[in-house]
Amino acid sequence: MPPEALTPERILEATEDVLRRYGPAKATVVDVARALGVSHGSVYRHFRTKAALREAVTDRWLERSVGQLATITATAGQPAPVKLRRWLSALFDAKRKKAGDDPELFATYGVLIEENSGVVDEHLRELTGQLREIIEEGVRAGQFAVEDTAVAAQAVFDATARFHDPCHAAEWRSPTIGDEFTAVSDLLLNGLRA
Amino acid sequence: MPPEALTPERILEATEDVLRRYGPAKATVVDVARALGVSHGSVYRHFRTKAALREAVTDRWLERSVGQLATITATAGQPAPVKLRRWLSALFDAKRKKAGDDPELFATYGVLIEENSGVVDEHLRELTGQLREIIEEGVRAGQFAVEDTAVAAQAVFDATARFHDPCHAAEWRSPTIGDEFTAVSDLLLNGLRA
Repeated sequence: MPPEALTPERILEATEDVLRRYGPAKATVVDVARALGVSHGSVYRHFRTKAALREAVTDRWLERSVGQLATITATAGQPAPVKLRRWLSALFDAKRKKAGDDPELFATYGVLIEENSGVVDEHLRELTGQLREIIEEGVRAGQFAVEDTAVAAQAVFDATARFHDPCHAAEWRSPTIGDEFTAVSDLLLNGLRA
Repeated sequence: MPPEALTPERILEATEDVLRRYGPAKATVVDVARALGVSHGSVYRHFRTKAALREAVTDRWLERSVGQLATITATAGQPAPVKLRRWLSALFDAKRKKAGDDPELFATYGVLIEENSGVVDEHLRELTGQLREIIEEGVRAGQFAVEDTAVAAQAVFDATARFHDPCHAAEWRSPTIGDEFTAVSDLLLNGLRA
């Protein structure tokens, strides 16, 4: 059986495993190469530095957690208020699921996120950009009254920080968190409406 | 000169100094007694356990950071929307000042806050209680339209978590944080208005 081709995706998968196993402080590129049965030179051919590898694995993790949101944003024929609520729920659900399903990996990525602020900023820009699109749709349809859609998008994102920022992950296990999320969403939707 | 009387307040002040100096993991009641030049028995006469002492010092810290808010809440003859905005600004300013003035002590209290969830819950109940009072005033004056003032108060508090929860302290140094706070406040005030 010929060895499987060494793709960036396989390296990133192995990196995630290694990070989970050894923790972000101890995991090395040599560990990743060993897990794949290749030389560390082969890994460096795809990711030129350890920092680049860690950045790429962080980017992949962030993208994976929000893949559904772009689909919601792009859905046609749905009123903007409904879409905005769906989008906020999907973001909260995705984050909560990640934190609950594999808390160790979640904590690991917490450390990586601190290290890779450039990747995180890009991720946040993408998310607030989607929010802005939805708010613009609502303004065009006369459902929302907003002076500056970029400011409004940032405000909605900031006002829901408790429901997506990993620093609040422990609160997501509270039995009342769902109701609290709904109350904040109601208030924000009310604040945007024309 | 007779020795100064050993009051709970003096013990709490010394405890804060000791916590700042040794860190919450290492600080002991013996350190506090030594700093005051008394026996640890004298300290225990006021605070029966180390846990009780740490709880009391946490409570004092939390109260100190929000003393002004009760005054704002009780001010007569001010429209509720103005009062609510003042209250939210005062909370954000108080937290930001604490985090910025003495980051080491702020981090120390971060650890104590994790330990003393009962004291923190009581503190949060007090704050949301004040928010509820202001919202009720606004409803009575026909300025706010809200179905359930307790739910609305919690929603306003949760939606401003980024501007008062210590887990966001690093973000408070951003040059745009003031504008972001204003945008969230505007959106929430708009969401409450009748």
